[in-house]
Amino acid sequence: MSAFRSHGRGHLNGPVVVIGTGLLGTSIGLGLRGRGVPVFLSDPSPTNQAVAVDIGAGQPLEHLGNEVPELVVVAAPPDVTAAVVARALADYPDSVVVDIASVKAAILAELQGAGADIARYVGTHPMAGREKSGPVAARGELFTSMPWVVCPGPESSAAAVQTARSLAADLGAVVSQFTADEHDAAVALVSHLPQIMSSLLASRLQGTPLHALSLAGNGLRDVTRIAASDPTLWVQILGGNAGKVVEILYGVREDLNRLIGTLEDPLASGARLDLAQLISEGNAGQARIPGKHGGPPQAYAWLTVLVDDRPGQIAKLLTEIGEIGVNVEDLRLDHSSGQNVGMVELSVLPNKHDHLIEALNDRGWRVLQ
Amino acid sequence: MSAFRSHGRGHLNGPVVVIGTGLLGTSIGLGLRGRGVPVFLSDPSPTNQAVAVDIGAGQPLEHLGNEVPELVVVAAPPDVTAAVVARALADYPDSVVVDIASVKAAILAELQGAGADIARYVGTHPMAGREKSGPVAARGELFTSMPWVVCPGPESSAAAVQTARSLAADLGAVVSQFTADEHDAAVALVSHLPQIMSSLLASRLQGTPLHALSLAGNGLRDVTRIAASDPTLWVQILGGNAGKVVEILYGVREDLNRLIGTLEDPLASGARLDLAQLISEGNAGQARIPGKHGGPPQAYAWLTVLVDDRPGQIAKLLTEIGEIGVNVEDLRLDHSSGQNVGMVELSVLPNKHDHLIEALNDRGWRVLQ
Repeated sequence: MSAFRSHGRGHLNGPVVVIGTGLLGTSIGLGLRGRGVPVFLSDPSPTNQAVAVDIGAGQPLEHLGNEVPELVVVAAPPDVTAAVVARALADYPDSVVVDIASVKAAILAELQGAGADIARYVGTHPMAGREKSGPVAARGELFTSMPWVVCPGPESSAAAVQTARSLAADLGAVVSQFTADEHDAAVALVSHLPQIMSSLLASRLQGTPLHALSLAGNGLRDVTRIAASDPTLWVQILGGNAGKVVEILYGVREDLNRLIGTLEDPLASGARLDLAQLISEGNAGQARIPGKHGGPPQAYAWLTVLVDDRPGQIAKLLTEIGEIGVNVEDLRLDHSSGQNVGMVELSVLPNKHDHLIEALNDRGWRVLQ
Repeated sequence: MSAFRSHGRGHLNGPVVVIGTGLLGTSIGLGLRGRGVPVFLSDPSPTNQAVAVDIGAGQPLEHLGNEVPELVVVAAPPDVTAAVVARALADYPDSVVVDIASVKAAILAELQGAGADIARYVGTHPMAGREKSGPVAARGELFTSMPWVVCPGPESSAAAVQTARSLAADLGAVVSQFTADEHDAAVALVSHLPQIMSSLLASRLQGTPLHALSLAGNGLRDVTRIAASDPTLWVQILGGNAGKVVEILYGVREDLNRLIGTLEDPLASGARLDLAQLISEGNAGQARIPGKHGGPPQAYAWLTVLVDDRPGQIAKLLTEIGEIGVNVEDLRLDHSSGQNVGMVELSVLPNKHDHLIEALNDRGWRVLQ
């Protein structure tokens, strides 16, 4: 491993080179520029690069001159990431190189196979995104409070890992460290499987009569929200993590086949128990999802307040809840068809629940508990 | 068909008998009592009945005396509904009888087979519920703005249908009319399938290491929210609509098998196209779900505002948006792990989007667009 610049403790000094000025690369540039770190940008599309420069994400790479980058961030599409990382390791022999692709093991394996100097390479995955893409949609605060997984390979040097962690921390993300395999298994389950289940469900709606869809409630809306995701990106993500995803899908298929068998003969002995087990196992899995701010799963107490659907009503409600002195942990608007009454579902700490209901009733709000 | 009382146009006069004082039956009693309609309650559990009477949902059935009910509402569990309806049709030969079970065709078929006087029977399904059950959780406003499907059988008289519609309308629900078959096909798709997909996904989380779950984002939370539903109720619902549900699951299984085949050989020719097609078909289905208030699907414009996670911040934001004069169409709190910064995602009409961002920026809010 060659010597390379390190940054002491905690913060990047730069210069940082960002290769790929799409949504994420440009957002990284903007965030680092906001901290005063010198950033140099490069993109195969001259237009994308010019836009990223124009909105202040950094200078064109030509301006780097003979300076040695502290860090090179490869923000290329997943399917070319390994090649671009290998090239960057060769082009910048004294710099740390990280990538930000959402699947990690395949890239590491490809670099190991290519004999690259991977002591200076660390794979990372910032779990942030938007519906929009491209540099115009970039925001320096995109990573604030979002998870950013750092996945050192067995060859990564401690200093390179520290530099990668500093990038994430400087941009306000919550840093965690996984092996590439652990990461890919985790996202297969918490990110890729939800996308697949949502898409499989939503695709069933294609031929439905519209009067049936008029009965859609929050359940359907929730489960299908991420079905609106970008096909191009997801082809690369699912293709890049195919092995881990398919392992999980075998289990889903087994459960689905059992359910189909049960529903084909719903009066058979044991059928009811089978159905109860499916729902109960879902209860048990759902209860394990961590609570807000990464805390343990917490049973918040929910209440529902009816409001007129016009400007200012929800603000008025929340202002009064603030006056009552209760913190709202979560909030949902409940949509209903055909009438202009809205329901606001609020979750609060259980010990505030009864007090809040009483206080809201006193103030004339219609509370469903 | 025997003569029976009808109520002129639009409103029930009562008396109304409610058989079954769980969450829904008691809520119906409370709602009708709130409109001044005389209600008489009966439940096989003396405790449940007493609670429902105590909270003001009606009087004990014994007090009905010789009066002829205008309407008998059967609010029994789905698996005994048909038997209770048949009994009510016999016990009250001059009254309309409705039920409120969430699956309709099997009940109608059972009554037709039993030779009941089903000119006076109308199946209905109020699409409202809560996580809690029992009379204590009942609320007279439970049905406000929620869909209530009225499903006349071929034998139902026009007057009986009108009485059933009046019940729903009096309780503030949005009334629609389907055949029992249309209803069961529609709820299989918009209600039962989402429950199954959510439960199948959530059950995969049972054995996951907690560090993997720490990467859970809003996608996973959304798709699994309804996986927390009550197993006992869902056994009856899925069992009662098994034929319609299993038809849809055959299609899901076909798509799942194709996906598994693709992911088993992700480098095969055509694999990428297959993956793109899955996500695209999900896009297309998701886009068909109607918008708020039953309107056509509408592409609202979203923006994200960063707020400190302390009481009053969201209220302050919404108050200022009200001052700016923009109506918030939908709102979500975006949870992140480990830091006390929250993101409020707001949707507004597209033509208000840029103005709102500018005005919020002027007022010092951190807007991600």
